[in-house]
Amino acid sequence: MTLAIRFADIEAARERLRGVAHRTPVLTSRSADARTGARLFFKCENLQRTGAFKFRGAYNALAQFSPEQRARGVVAFSSGNHAQAIALAAQLLGIPATIVMPQDAPPIKIEATRGYGAEIVFYDRYREDREAIGRALAAERGLTLIPPFDHPHVMAGQGTAAAELFEDVGALDALVVCVGGGGLISGCAVAAKHLAPGCRVIGVEPEAGNDVQLSLAAGRIVHIDVPATIADGAQTQHAGQLTFPVIQALVAEIVTVPDAALVRAMRFFAERMKLVVEPTGALAAAAVFERLSLAGRRVGVIVSGGNLDCARYAQLLSSASP
Amino acid sequence: MTLAIRFADIEAARERLRGVAHRTPVLTSRSADARTGARLFFKCENLQRTGAFKFRGAYNALAQFSPEQRARGVVAFSSGNHAQAIALAAQLLGIPATIVMPQDAPPIKIEATRGYGAEIVFYDRYREDREAIGRALAAERGLTLIPPFDHPHVMAGQGTAAAELFEDVGALDALVVCVGGGGLISGCAVAAKHLAPGCRVIGVEPEAGNDVQLSLAAGRIVHIDVPATIADGAQTQHAGQLTFPVIQALVAEIVTVPDAALVRAMRFFAERMKLVVEPTGALAAAAVFERLSLAGRRVGVIVSGGNLDCARYAQLLSSASP
Repeated sequence: MTLAIRFADIEAARERLRGVAHRTPVLTSRSADARTGARLFFKCENLQRTGAFKFRGAYNALAQFSPEQRARGVVAFSSGNHAQAIALAAQLLGIPATIVMPQDAPPIKIEATRGYGAEIVFYDRYREDREAIGRALAAERGLTLIPPFDHPHVMAGQGTAAAELFEDVGALDALVVCVGGGGLISGCAVAAKHLAPGCRVIGVEPEAGNDVQLSLAAGRIVHIDVPATIADGAQTQHAGQLTFPVIQALVAEIVTVPDAALVRAMRFFAERMKLVVEPTGALAAAAVFERLSLAGRRVGVIVSGGNLDCARYAQLLSSASP
Repeated sequence: MTLAIRFADIEAARERLRGVAHRTPVLTSRSADARTGARLFFKCENLQRTGAFKFRGAYNALAQFSPEQRARGVVAFSSGNHAQAIALAAQLLGIPATIVMPQDAPPIKIEATRGYGAEIVFYDRYREDREAIGRALAAERGLTLIPPFDHPHVMAGQGTAAAELFEDVGALDALVVCVGGGGLISGCAVAAKHLAPGCRVIGVEPEAGNDVQLSLAAGRIVHIDVPATIADGAQTQHAGQLTFPVIQALVAEIVTVPDAALVRAMRFFAERMKLVVEPTGALAAAAVFERLSLAGRRVGVIVSGGNLDCARYAQLLSSASP
């Protein structure tokens, strides 16, 4: 089966993102290494523009719009990091953006998205279907819909994070990546396959939302109910038609972590590494700290995002047991 | 008058720190730029080893010990970032370290210092004089006392932060630096004088602890009572005999900010830049956001540290008004 993206797509994405996306730093931590016995390299996508890796995929997709697509505009539905990523990428490229968001989205996210110049269309998450609204807007106004993960340009853009990491630190024994819909891990796995063929790519899902783990076991895409987890970026109900085959082909295993481990990892990031990391962004690190045995290995850890409300963050930091 | 350090001392410090200190990232923020009209470059010393710039000066000082000094050991008194910096630098160089700390220092700081292998000598901060204890230990055991700021090797080490910043981003119109005892700003000012002679070096003190501002006005070192401020790294009562002449000669002005501005800046760092910054570490940014007019300028901002207890951090984030 032909996979949706090849390494050449990631290389092309890197050219498009050059000077636009931040080349995020790779940080190391003596205390994290001491704790695991591994040599860990944290790729800090929480320090990416808009606070998450999502900007890479969004910009890579929008930069490939035809002149007509650019003139008409883009639409996306998301209450999270994809919305802000699309809004900023559109602003930078001079493309009108419409974002479909729930009425009760956090005010800080609404403001940020508006701050990037996007038009926001609200919907009632209990009564309306955001996908249907997005598709209707696309049809009525001739907008191009960019989904959050299941799109080759999005996947290739996300893969640039891993490509930069390998370029900075050389070959790795393992690369640990959070899994929502699979956009990030599929892009990263294609990069790893090419740049460090011996590297095991390991996915991490929240315990309550292990649909990709179930899907790999079943050999087909399994759908689950919206999982109850604080990792809101991984509350997807199923992997994508394009991302899942890449995961099947290139990801070595999927492990899961409970929410309490995410809070402990967030606290570690704050105390020892001085980084604000959102729950989803802490998935990979939590697995490295509490689930995986990686002593003696060189391991890449993608810190995927840092967007959360200050009050919520304060609450999670306070609730963590030491 | 001859200043305590020259640029050559900073260059020598850079050689000693190469491969030992982190070359900390310089981050930019679209929203910070939009807010100020300036182009801001944040030098993230909160991401330095031990979570603060202090490691630079500590290591630079200890690396210059004679074989006899190394064998006998180092002593320092500090409840803060200098203690951890000395402890780690000593561990890396195989030098025994003794740290004089108050009995009621935060457990996390005691643990971190012990984790670096230092011996801790406790004192009662209400009844005993830590300087006297430090000096007595130095005399009895033949230890070398390294003060937190008023030492040429410490000052030169701290100056490497500014040297790296200029190397990364080129000339700047202004460099904004927090001021406690003056170790960081004096080193940075010497670096700026040499690498970017047109750059205005601006110091920032907490409103309640403006001893250096008063000292510049008086033309001599003014002593104040321990200031009541959340910026515990700037609770110094007076500048140093070595740092003050450098500040007089090379610093353009000192401005002050109230504690509430520090909390707002910390919240900005968390929400928009995903960085954990301690109150002292937010001094320079708070001045840039709320006190200085820097529109159109290229400005360096030293983010000096990120060490604070999670519970305290959560409390400060929650208390901030939006």
